Amino acid sequence: MEQLVFVEEPEGTDEPRVHAAWLPPEAFRALGARRVLVHGHGLLVDTVLDEVSRACARYGGRVWHSPSWDVDVDLVLALRGAGELPNPAVEAARAAGEAALAEFGDGGTLGDEGFVLARAGEVTAVVADAPAGLLYGLFHVVRLCAAAYDPARPPERHRPALRRRMLNHWDNVAVHPVMGQVERGYAGGSIFWHRGRPRGDLARIREYGRLLAASGVNAISVNNVNVARTEALLLTDRLGDVAEIADVLRPYGIRVHLSITFAAPVVLGGLSTADPMDEAVRAWWAAATRNVYERIPDFGGYVVKADSEGQPGPFTYGRDHADGANVLAEALAPHGGVVHWRAFVYNHHQDWRDRSTDRARAAYDHFVPLDGRFRTNVIVQVKFGPVDFQTREPVSPVLAAMPATRLAVELQVTQEYTGQQRHVCHLGPWWSELLRFEPWGPGGRTIADVATGEAEAGGGLVAVANTGADLFWTGHPLAQANLYTFGRLAWDPRLDPSAILDEWISLTFPPSATADPELVGRTLHEIMDDSWRTYERYTAPLGVGFMVHPGDHYGPGIDGYEYTRWGTYHFADRDGVGVDRSRASGTGFAAQYPPYWAQVYESPDSCPDELLLFFHHVPYQHVLHSGSTVIQHIYDTHFAGVEEVAVMRRRWQTLNGMIDPAVYERVAERLDEQMRSATEWRDQVNTYFFRKSGVPDERGRVIY
Amino acid sequence: MEQLVFVEEPEGTDEPRVHAAWLPPEAFRALGARRVLVHGHGLLVDTVLDEVSRACARYGGRVWHSPSWDVDVDLVLALRGAGELPNPAVEAARAAGEAALAEFGDGGTLGDEGFVLARAGEVTAVVADAPAGLLYGLFHVVRLCAAAYDPARPPERHRPALRRRMLNHWDNVAVHPVMGQVERGYAGGSIFWHRGRPRGDLARIREYGRLLAASGVNAISVNNVNVARTEALLLTDRLGDVAEIADVLRPYGIRVHLSITFAAPVVLGGLSTADPMDEAVRAWWAAATRNVYERIPDFGGYVVKADSEGQPGPFTYGRDHADGANVLAEALAPHGGVVHWRAFVYNHHQDWRDRSTDRARAAYDHFVPLDGRFRTNVIVQVKFGPVDFQTREPVSPVLAAMPATRLAVELQVTQEYTGQQRHVCHLGPWWSELLRFEPWGPGGRTIADVATGEAEAGGGLVAVANTGADLFWTGHPLAQANLYTFGRLAWDPRLDPSAILDEWISLTFPPSATADPELVGRTLHEIMDDSWRTYERYTAPLGVGFMVHPGDHYGPGIDGYEYTRWGTYHFADRDGVGVDRSRASGTGFAAQYPPYWAQVYESPDSCPDELLLFFHHVPYQHVLHSGSTVIQHIYDTHFAGVEEVAVMRRRWQTLNGMIDPAVYERVAERLDEQMRSATEWRDQVNTYFFRKSGVPDERGRVIY
Repeated sequence: MEQLVFVEEPEGTDEPRVHAAWLPPEAFRALGARRVLVHGHGLLVDTVLDEVSRACARYGGRVWHSPSWDVDVDLVLALRGAGELPNPAVEAARAAGEAALAEFGDGGTLGDEGFVLARAGEVTAVVADAPAGLLYGLFHVVRLCAAAYDPARPPERHRPALRRRMLNHWDNVAVHPVMGQVERGYAGGSIFWHRGRPRGDLARIREYGRLLAASGVNAISVNNVNVARTEALLLTDRLGDVAEIADVLRPYGIRVHLSITFAAPVVLGGLSTADPMDEAVRAWWAAATRNVYERIPDFGGYVVKADSEGQPGPFTYGRDHADGANVLAEALAPHGGVVHWRAFVYNHHQDWRDRSTDRARAAYDHFVPLDGRFRTNVIVQVKFGPVDFQTREPVSPVLAAMPATRLAVELQVTQEYTGQQRHVCHLGPWWSELLRFEPWGPGGRTIADVATGEAEAGGGLVAVANTGADLFWTGHPLAQANLYTFGRLAWDPRLDPSAILDEWISLTFPPSATADPELVGRTLHEIMDDSWRTYERYTAPLGVGFMVHPGDHYGPGIDGYEYTRWGTYHFADRDGVGVDRSRASGTGFAAQYPPYWAQVYESPDSCPDELLLFFHHVPYQHVLHSGSTVIQHIYDTHFAGVEEVAVMRRRWQTLNGMIDPAVYERVAERLDEQMRSATEWRDQVNTYFFRKSGVPDERGRVIY
Repeated sequence: MEQLVFVEEPEGTDEPRVHAAWLPPEAFRALGARRVLVHGHGLLVDTVLDEVSRACARYGGRVWHSPSWDVDVDLVLALRGAGELPNPAVEAARAAGEAALAEFGDGGTLGDEGFVLARAGEVTAVVADAPAGLLYGLFHVVRLCAAAYDPARPPERHRPALRRRMLNHWDNVAVHPVMGQVERGYAGGSIFWHRGRPRGDLARIREYGRLLAASGVNAISVNNVNVARTEALLLTDRLGDVAEIADVLRPYGIRVHLSITFAAPVVLGGLSTADPMDEAVRAWWAAATRNVYERIPDFGGYVVKADSEGQPGPFTYGRDHADGANVLAEALAPHGGVVHWRAFVYNHHQDWRDRSTDRARAAYDHFVPLDGRFRTNVIVQVKFGPVDFQTREPVSPVLAAMPATRLAVELQVTQEYTGQQRHVCHLGPWWSELLRFEPWGPGGRTIADVATGEAEAGGGLVAVANTGADLFWTGHPLAQANLYTFGRLAWDPRLDPSAILDEWISLTFPPSATADPELVGRTLHEIMDDSWRTYERYTAPLGVGFMVHPGDHYGPGIDGYEYTRWGTYHFADRDGVGVDRSRASGTGFAAQYPPYWAQVYESPDSCPDELLLFFHHVPYQHVLHSGSTVIQHIYDTHFAGVEEVAVMRRRWQTLNGMIDPAVYERVAERLDEQMRSATEWRDQVNTYFFRKSGVPDERGRVIY
């Protein structure tokens, strides 16, 4: 056929306006009507002052800066080192905040980003040791709304569980011929770049920084981990473009990181080698890094995808990942920077005929032997699962196997495999489940603990961003909640994802003249809270993964990756389906876990249903713990998933007229597409397995 | 995954030289050593004179032009109307040619392109009525080599069976973001266009015209049937670019045609409609066409893909294909031009769940009811099969169902579905089989007869070109033979494809110091002659078609189109495979044939094995006429096909040192790829059907 497909370059330069996301003016209503004192100095204190001033200007409150006025206020935001205040009531509140700290048992440490909130009399006080803490405290007050001024509110201390809460932007500077401006981006162009140049909309970047700070994010890498020629230059010739972004994000406490190519000494430096053991190479990295810090003193560090999917790396020189990471770490160490070295390394030229090679094993096999060899400012960045951001995977065993290495957990906020921001798929419950997972067995440390590390020296949480130049930031307006939830979970992984969702809803959909906020909130919650499980129901069953359309990864392609080099197979035949990863008869991947889970995963009898086909090849008539057979489970969940989307859509329709019409229309249109796509998933999966198994649906529903 | 794929823009501007294909200097050796008289005048006679002069300059012969010299010559090439010659021996030969004509029973007509070859004494005479006939006569003499001067050679007359022997170039002017410079092109960039502009290499176009003339082609369309914005302008603003090509090709008897967009009156003319019944639209086409002929007096006409795969057409205005074609025909008629209106119309948004819709039926259902309604200068251009250029399909029933319409048969020389010029797949035997097919049953008229038409008023033969800016013209050097064979079969469909192949081999691989020409010829013949059947063996079995990788159509994708909107399914399940197109229980497509074949195709018992799965869904254990079961046939042919490729490769290796090293290396490298790809086809097809059927190979070979 002579199929004609036009690829539309996402434009997005002429948006009429940008959606306010979770910081609409109304979110500041409770704050803006009050009398506020900001006490202290610094770049981020100025940011706090700006925020409060804007709110008070809109809602009739007043703001004062630092201690020279003896006024009564409702709220004081004070740096601990900024001294006492002349007004006794206000000083009492400030002092109450400091005093409250002592009660927390560890001497009241707050760190660079923590804060305490306390009441004294009629005054609410937020006290922090550093300006960033004050900024986070401010956004906490915003989230609390009126509750921040409740006289009965007990003192509370907040510190981020994870020191580094980072977004990776897979944004290309130049438009990639296949991947476009943003690799796996579903929200229009890049906020930072446009067709080879900086986009130039610094106001938009500032607004983005503000949103990120309000969610808790404090680090960002500004270019794709796949570094092509144009992007490589950001480290040297085009460093000014990076510095410009850093300057705009700094007032929101966000440090900029850069994805670099391991081949930089060759492609940029003109050296004949990038061998990490070569003295000239070390010197080159040291000099290049020094140069970066001269221009960006708070530069975060480098993100590196090396020896992975065609990117250059130390293997070329017979060196290993530790050698590679350490040469960069050595260059960064004098300046306080870190290397995020990605563990996403596997053979992407696998032979599908070879059932002994298992891509799931690869990160462990490559990295675990190197434990202890990485410098202290190297963070090994590990995708949450052993394969690749699937809707359902077990937790990566690497996370339990490198005690002497700083590990970051990498999540994917951009919905590459979870509906590409055309489907509602709220990922909070999934991430929460992952972060709470106890890889050493019940009662042991969690994945969040691993990312926190001993004495907070862990690698933190990293996510691939879902944002772009789109009017709603994220293509699908409801996908904003995923970004917000990521930031909040990175701040505190123990938060209830359901409560975070409600927080996001109440900020983003403030009360209005036409809406019953309780009804809007409840409806949105019902649509979103279980949507990840709904998505799971109508897509690849029982953890088997990767039944997506090749290349773009959108929509079903049951055999799409079955005979490819990518190592992602389901091995369905007329008798059964799934991948045997047991130690006894399979690839042995299950044995990469500590004993408790190694044993659970080893047998189909003990393996949790939702991961059964990830770990085992079973007959279609295998009976699950749920009591259903595998084949009937496939039929039932696929019919159910589509039904649930239909319910979502009906629920959404009840909001017509109650919310911003632009948001309503955008979501309505995407729900239509989700309905179409979910139906396609259902029919293809059911037909595929019916044709293979020959087993009819017990309930006699239509399978084509 | 974050797969990184670079799309390389085929360049090809800096070839060191261009391969001579079937016109190397050595092919003129027998001619160039002789004394030659060219008798007559005209543009194409000048071309003959040039060719002979060049050959004689190289090999020591001599050439004279027209009758003023009374010399003895070995060969006279004379126009019948150019008068007698002063030299008695030469005049005797010329007269013998004319006299021989009378013996052919129809008064000795030659037409515009025919010629007669005769001997008298020591002189060979080629006599034609028109300059083009003389040019074709010259190339015939070249092909004959020494045999042209054999005293015992009886007189022979040659006239093309088909008046129009046309190539369609699917070349884009601007690079299409998905399809590139040449849609389905496997030979580098376009000879005509480069990144939005004319390529500007007129010498290369001239050389191309020369090769085409020597094969028999006399018409060419210079842009893709999918007409985008830039290409639309060729009709008007950029007509000069087309005229330049026409000027270069004219000396080789090749007329230029243009693919146009049916929406031209709107997109170029600024009208509000392109309704073919609208007077302003008719006037616009008349004026635009008049303008074309002012610049290109021998312009061939328009090629149109309308209401097909998203191209605009008359359906928009509630008109049918006859209305649409006739408005263009009306504009062309005063100037002698024709419309090639493509019958490739089907629903390309089909629902895979809907088994009643059958894409194979579409061209018949759309066009047959319109028989008799097309103007006489409309040619309905019909793909040879009902689906789309597959390796094996039945002949399109449209070709037997429109007696009152001029029909052209469309072949695909570019190897979209037949190995993409990375595999050796010599298509001559396949085309010969198609052209000799008797749609009304044994002993009836053939497909070639349909294309010839009554009183030679048929539509001719058309093929999508396989040529590009590549050094070897066709990517794979051996794919040149497909282009050559197309031209020769278009000239005379009764030629033996095996003999054409030998003709091509002997022209393209002339004797050299290092080669035994007999050995080279035999080896090449063995590699190529059966290569289409080899390709069929290792790809989609028994006519089921379309098991290709989606999008690029290269390599296996057994389920690649199974759940898509393209209407190309095989319906394999655990019990059987194939498409039921019978009248009794299927889509009824079989009933579109005249009675003989309708009956043969209706039943699996009478249906030929090679088309069984095109017409019927049968169990894997169904026994073929060959005695094998379907499943065992699949295994056997796939193992055999790969074995045959291995033999091809070994045979090729025996030619090392005997032929042009550049040709040797290019073919050797592609045979390696063919071996890899054929193995992949074998393993994927066998594994797929083994997993589905559960039937083991009788011979116990490895199936993964």
